[in-house]
Amino acid sequence: MEFSSKLLEKAVNEMSQLPGIGKRTALRLILHLLKQPAEQTQFLSNALTTMREEIKFCSSCHNISDEAVCEICKNTSRNHKIICVVEDVRDVMAIENTNQYKGIYHVLGGKISPIDGIGPSQLNINSLVNKVKLGHIDEIIFALSSTMEGDTTNFYIFKQIKDFDLKTSTIARGIAVGDELEYADEVTLGRSIVNRIPFENSLKNI
Amino acid sequence: MEFSSKLLEKAVNEMSQLPGIGKRTALRLILHLLKQPAEQTQFLSNALTTMREEIKFCSSCHNISDEAVCEICKNTSRNHKIICVVEDVRDVMAIENTNQYKGIYHVLGGKISPIDGIGPSQLNINSLVNKVKLGHIDEIIFALSSTMEGDTTNFYIFKQIKDFDLKTSTIARGIAVGDELEYADEVTLGRSIVNRIPFENSLKNI
Repeated sequence: MEFSSKLLEKAVNEMSQLPGIGKRTALRLILHLLKQPAEQTQFLSNALTTMREEIKFCSSCHNISDEAVCEICKNTSRNHKIICVVEDVRDVMAIENTNQYKGIYHVLGGKISPIDGIGPSQLNINSLVNKVKLGHIDEIIFALSSTMEGDTTNFYIFKQIKDFDLKTSTIARGIAVGDELEYADEVTLGRSIVNRIPFENSLKNI
Repeated sequence: MEFSSKLLEKAVNEMSQLPGIGKRTALRLILHLLKQPAEQTQFLSNALTTMREEIKFCSSCHNISDEAVCEICKNTSRNHKIICVVEDVRDVMAIENTNQYKGIYHVLGGKISPIDGIGPSQLNINSLVNKVKLGHIDEIIFALSSTMEGDTTNFYIFKQIKDFDLKTSTIARGIAVGDELEYADEVTLGRSIVNRIPFENSLKNI
């Protein structure tokens, strides 16, 4: 692509560094910004810079936070003895949206993935194991995605905490509410039969 | 969506103002930036701000440019008597990429579209008509997309310049090079038969 302006080219190049945004999309976005009032671009760049510079990660659960300790960890009405282990902030938001969980979280910041060069030391695993060692934890809930990387990460953590006196659990895998059985993949359907629950329990939910 | 951080929320909100970027995509992009070194965000916001503040539009053809007059209009080896009328800078880039056009451009900045509240006065039409009035123009090539809005805009300009002594033309519509006839829509195929060209002419191209 040949640009008529170096400034335009630079902006497009920077924008196309973002995942899933190619040069053409970047150009479309930049031309959109050019048609809007200059303030919109100003607001966007300010929001990005301020966010990147001032954002903090909760010192306890590593969730994104504006303060040293996040709202969830600060909340004394939540059960601090149950920890849900998730990959990133999006998972926290998704679980919070369900209004079904009153424990706290631990954000790993990724999954063990040797192919991407991510080992256990790059993830927030040590701080989780330390929390367990200090005691006061009743249950660890693994809520990573059930991929090879997710399972590896779960198992890596499980090995380090299995000798302590606490429950470990993983979120239920099964047919989504409202889905037809005939369209479910056999692994999921198989698991949902093996891990079936007492009928009365299903009446309690939501 | 409930965010654990106001800074994050603000950045996501600003990012999701861009066309085709919803809240979820914006969050994904922002979380990507958070995983990258802080400089990347800095580079991106600087590029955006500088671009928006310092970018100029060529005083002659209204193309995006770093200087008062763009490279194309400055180029004395190009034919300044032929003007190709296009919608925006992307069309200039597309035509330049073909290496088949040696005239200059006139960037309208959009198409007449009453439904979007865009009338002739918001487009760079007057300056085009003025160029024609001054004489020295041999040909105007309309290269807008062949939609209702494009045709309206073409016709609006044509009405104002038709009494002057110059040629007006429009780019050829027809079957794309390499395409199968059977999959072409009938309007395009019809036009390509009505506007057929002498066989020898087709041998000259590219």
